[in-house]
Formats: sequence, C-alpha cells, structure tokens
Amino acid sequence: MALLLEKHDIQAIVAEVGLAELMDRVIDHLAEDFGRWEGFDKSPRTANHYPHGVIELMPISNEDWYSFKYVTGHPRNPLDGKLTVAAFGALAEASSGYPVMVSEMTLLTAIRTAATSVFAARLLARPDSRTMALIGTGCQAEFQSYAFHHSFGIDTVRFYDVDPDACRKFARNMAGHPLRLVRCDSIDEACEGADIVSTVTADKANRTVVGRKHLIPGRHFNGVGGDCPGKTELASDMLADLKIAVEYEPQSRIEGEIQALPADTPVTELWQVLNGTAPVRTSDEDMTLFDSVGFAIEDFSVLRCIYGIANDGDFGRRSTLVFAPDDPKDLYSELAVPALPKRVAAM
Amino acid sequence: MALLLEKHDIQAIVAEVGLAELMDRVIDHLAEDFGRWEGFDKSPRTANHYPHGVIELMPISNEDWYSFKYVTGHPRNPLDGKLTVAAFGALAEASSGYPVMVSEMTLLTAIRTAATSVFAARLLARPDSRTMALIGTGCQAEFQSYAFHHSFGIDTVRFYDVDPDACRKFARNMAGHPLRLVRCDSIDEACEGADIVSTVTADKANRTVVGRKHLIPGRHFNGVGGDCPGKTELASDMLADLKIAVEYEPQSRIEGEIQALPADTPVTELWQVLNGTAPVRTSDEDMTLFDSVGFAIEDFSVLRCIYGIANDGDFGRRSTLVFAPDDPKDLYSELAVPALPKRVAAM
Repeated sequence: MALLLEKHDIQAIVAEVGLAELMDRVIDHLAEDFGRWEGFDKSPRTANHYPHGVIELMPISNEDWYSFKYVTGHPRNPLDGKLTVAAFGALAEASSGYPVMVSEMTLLTAIRTAATSVFAARLLARPDSRTMALIGTGCQAEFQSYAFHHSFGIDTVRFYDVDPDACRKFARNMAGHPLRLVRCDSIDEACEGADIVSTVTADKANRTVVGRKHLIPGRHFNGVGGDCPGKTELASDMLADLKIAVEYEPQSRIEGEIQALPADTPVTELWQVLNGTAPVRTSDEDMTLFDSVGFAIEDFSVLRCIYGIANDGDFGRRSTLVFAPDDPKDLYSELAVPALPKRVAAM
Repeated sequence: MALLLEKHDIQAIVAEVGLAELMDRVIDHLAEDFGRWEGFDKSPRTANHYPHGVIELMPISNEDWYSFKYVTGHPRNPLDGKLTVAAFGALAEASSGYPVMVSEMTLLTAIRTAATSVFAARLLARPDSRTMALIGTGCQAEFQSYAFHHSFGIDTVRFYDVDPDACRKFARNMAGHPLRLVRCDSIDEACEGADIVSTVTADKANRTVVGRKHLIPGRHFNGVGGDCPGKTELASDMLADLKIAVEYEPQSRIEGEIQALPADTPVTELWQVLNGTAPVRTSDEDMTLFDSVGFAIEDFSVLRCIYGIANDGDFGRRSTLVFAPDDPKDLYSELAVPALPKRVAAM
C-alpha cells in the first residue's frame, strides 16, 4: 500500500528535520541524480494549456524508480484565494510500477525549486557571492532566501515586488532570520550591488524583468519565474552576453528564457557542468544565467528524499489509492462488499 | 480541498449504485464525451518502458475539465501478488487547475474498459449478437461479461484461459448471474458460434490469440488486451479483412493492433462512427474490430461520472493532497507549524 503524505505530513517532516537540514538533504539528492543523468528516461513535460494557465505532468524514470508530478500554473489563481502553483505527485518502484508514495507537492515543489537554484548557483555563481537581489516576493521568495542563506552563504537579500502586500508578507516571514533584508522600491534599486539576481515572478507573459542595464561583470542570474512558452523574464537582447546553463535542453527550448534564441544556439545542461565536461563560469568576470524551468528530475530527487524520511520516521499513512487484491487475477471480487449481492440480485 | 476516493470508497459507490446501473451511467458519459470529441485537447499517453512493463500517464482536457490517469502495465506482477494493471488519477477544474478529486482507478479502469467495449460494440457489432467468446479470464473478464450481458444483451459467454485457475475464478465469480457460461478447452472451441470475440489477454508480446481461421462473416472482434508497442493479440494477416475502429488514431498507431499495418492505412475513429460520418458496419456480413487500447477520454468519462456520484452521495473524504493556504501568496507560513520555530532557532 502506498504511503499517502498530505499537507500536515510534510509540515510534520519539515518540523522534525528542520527546513535548513531538509534543503541540504534535497541538494544532496539533486547532486546524486544530476550526477547519473544519462541513466534517466527523460522527456519534456506534457502541458495542457488554458487561457489562464497550464496543467502539466512531469514523468521521469531510471532503472529503479519512476516519479511524476501533476502541477498547475495559473497566475490568476491568487485572485480566487488559490495558489498559482499547486502540485501533487508520486514515487513508484520500477519493478512493479506500483507507487510507493503519493504526496502533496506544492510545498515540496517550493523546496526543490529553491534547492535546485542553490545547486545551480554552486556550479555557476561566484562562490564569494553574498548579496542577492530578489525580484518577486510571492510564494517562492522565502524558500529562495532561506536556501541561499543557509546552503550558499548569501547574507543580504535586496527585494522588490510590484505588490506591496507581497513585500510586507516576505519581510514579516523572514523577520528574525539571520539575514539582512533590504526592501527596495524598484528592480534597479534591488539589483544595486547584487552578486546574484533571482527573478521569481509569476505573470504568464514575455516580461522584461531584467534587461541589458542589469548586466554587471561577474553577476549570476537565477531565472526561476520564466517557465512556459510565452512566459519569460529576461530581455532577449541580453541573452547573448550570458553564459547559460539549463536543466534539460528539449524542455528549456520550449519553456525557458532560451525560447527567444535560435534553436541551434548551443546551450549547456547542468549535469555537464557538474561532471566537469562543460564548465560555464571560467572567470570572475563571466555573467551567468541558470535558465530554470523546473525539470522532472528535481521532483524525483525531492520525492526520494522525502520517502526516505517518511519511511524511517513513520510519517503519513498507508493508503488504498492503489492496492493489490488477495488474488492478483481477481479484481472483481473486490467489489463483493456486503451491500453488493442484494443490488445485483435486484437488478 | 480535493475529494480523495480510495478503494473502499469505490466499493461503497458500487454497492450503493449497483454495478449494472453504474455501467450504464459510465456508457452515458462515454457517449457524451465521444460526442464532443473535437472539443478535447488530446495526445497519446506518455510511456516509460521497463524490461517487464510500462508506466503511463494519460492526460486529456476540454474547456471545463482536465483529467489524467497514472497506470502501470506489468504482466509479471501477479507472480508477486500484484495486479498487472493498477491505476489512480485525478479530475481537475480547468479554471484553476486544482484537482477536485483524486481517486483510485484500478477498479475504475476495469469498469470503464468494459463500458467502452460495450459502447463500441453498440456501434460496431450486430445488434442481435447474443453469444460472446471471452479469451482470457483475468481481471477484466467479469467486467466484460457483466457489461455485455447487462448493457448489450449477451446471454452466453464461452470462455477460455491458458490458466485453469483463472478459468475457475471466473466461473466462480459469475455463478448466480443470469448468464449462460460455457467453459472451453481451447480458443477455437470458445469461438464456436460466437457473434462477438473478446480478447483480454495480458502477455506483453505479439501473440496470435486469434487468426484468420476465426474470421466468420458478421463477427465482431473486441480486442482489449493488445495495448502496447509489441503487445498484440490478432494475427496481422487478418486485419485487412476487418473493418476497424480505433479510439484515437495517433495513440492506436503506436499501441493498437494496427501497429502491424502501414502507417498510411486509413482507420476510423470511434467518434466518427458515433456521429454517423464514417459508419464501419454496413451489412450483417461485415467483420468488425474494435482495436481498443484505452484512451484518456474514457478515464475522463468515468471520473466525471464518479465525481457526480461521490459529490451527491458524500463519498470519500476531503484531502490536503492539494490545498490553498490562507494567503495565496504566502506558502512559507504553511511551514510555521508549532515545532518549526524551535528547530529553526537551533539551526
């Protein structure tokens, strides 16, 4: 029977392990999985597009495990009290195809996205980066700040959002954390002196959140919010100046900032940076971009990580969402619950 | 909060509604959805293949709803006490992308597969068909027999399976039903006098379950078990003699019996038969094949049907597998459970 993890179970796991420790563990799992990249059966996620959003399925597998995530991206959802990004997913054993865990993944996506940003920044940004500009203080903002502080060494976050309420929410949530917070009145102000610029906006459109004027030698751009056809954050005329790494080229061509580039422009995948075959940053002057769209391997990593914790710590509950009957060739008898014979007889 | 339906909830629904009535309702939903075929965003299912099986995701959407199913097909699973086909899935509202229901779908797949076979037979088989040969008495066998008896008018089922235990299980489960059961010792014997031949075998290979010698004027073949690349049930040299309808051509070219045909061989989709633009059977002498592989629209139909019943009847329970926080831009505060501040402070 598959383990079922709902919101309160993930809350309990974070409370038990601690968010900082959990981020580190997810990063470790990311490093392990990106390190065995070629052993995965990969494909771009499937997307069903609606006027106001998209629903995506993100499957991936290696010889031992299979995972998928269901995720919605509906930027107008907050107007109805719902999240722009909400998700759930499953981890399954390859040998039988049976899920071993079905889990909420809204919180897990926020965690793995931030963990992936840090994982990429370790490969792409100057290691002495200490100041981060954060453009967009929606749901992902605290996770980015938390992860970059704890797992990278950022000590100052300069933040800006078009929505003052979102800025206040962010400041309130991060109060008490050992992180210097500087609220800014514009993108330009937020970028002043930033070693890393993280863009985490939600609008489904081609926006120029940052442009050529934000190109500063040595700067690393962590582009998180552009993740859909027609949804980008960087001015296309700055891309040629950046050394770019993506997660998975076939998907990023469709969804990433690089959708603005000719399809034959060479790009580097993150795993190639990790294994040393294609370094991206070769000097402190290089300007780099992690063109993040979110790839299935990151969900695979976080699900593996959480499954280990949940199994060891007895979190969640056993579910019959997927089940094995007493006789694997006898599914029909599963319907022979007490009330059934009467109904059938009365037919 | 999404409704969560586990095995016992589906059992309770079947007990409440009755399997016969439920089959009819699912067939009604199928007719409605196939009748508005062109309004769906369709794609072949994604498949991750393993040496012993396949894991598939089956998404589909129209302007109001989205559904997907996770389904495994691992023919060796019964050796480990697991089902060859196990599934779960979700129904979501298009406007937000939020799932309204996450449900077990192993039982629902068995029900919708049988309902679809009957739905297709009403369009393709001679209406006076009364005798069905059933080749393969695994998990799908009772559902096929039940649906063809109740919703089509079959009064005799002649059955055969290579596994005597599976034959005995089938006979035991169907005992007491007002259906004449004839256990046969071979495929040939089972096919004697059958108006409809249903093949429901599980082996992942190109098998000749039925061949040219089983071509009898007027006969309808209901080909259910061949549903994967390299997994077929009909001899390829009999296909040219059959008038064939498929569910969704792009997927059936990959998975159906027609994978054995040149890619430019014309085929008819079921919805075209339904709306009268492409009749398949034009005489009582025609030999027809429903080349069924299982398409996402069928899951969409059964999920809509079950959601209506569950909502009206208060089945299942509300789950936080996917949730909306108090403030839709504040996901981080969801982690501020009582134990968290201590851990963070101790970091």
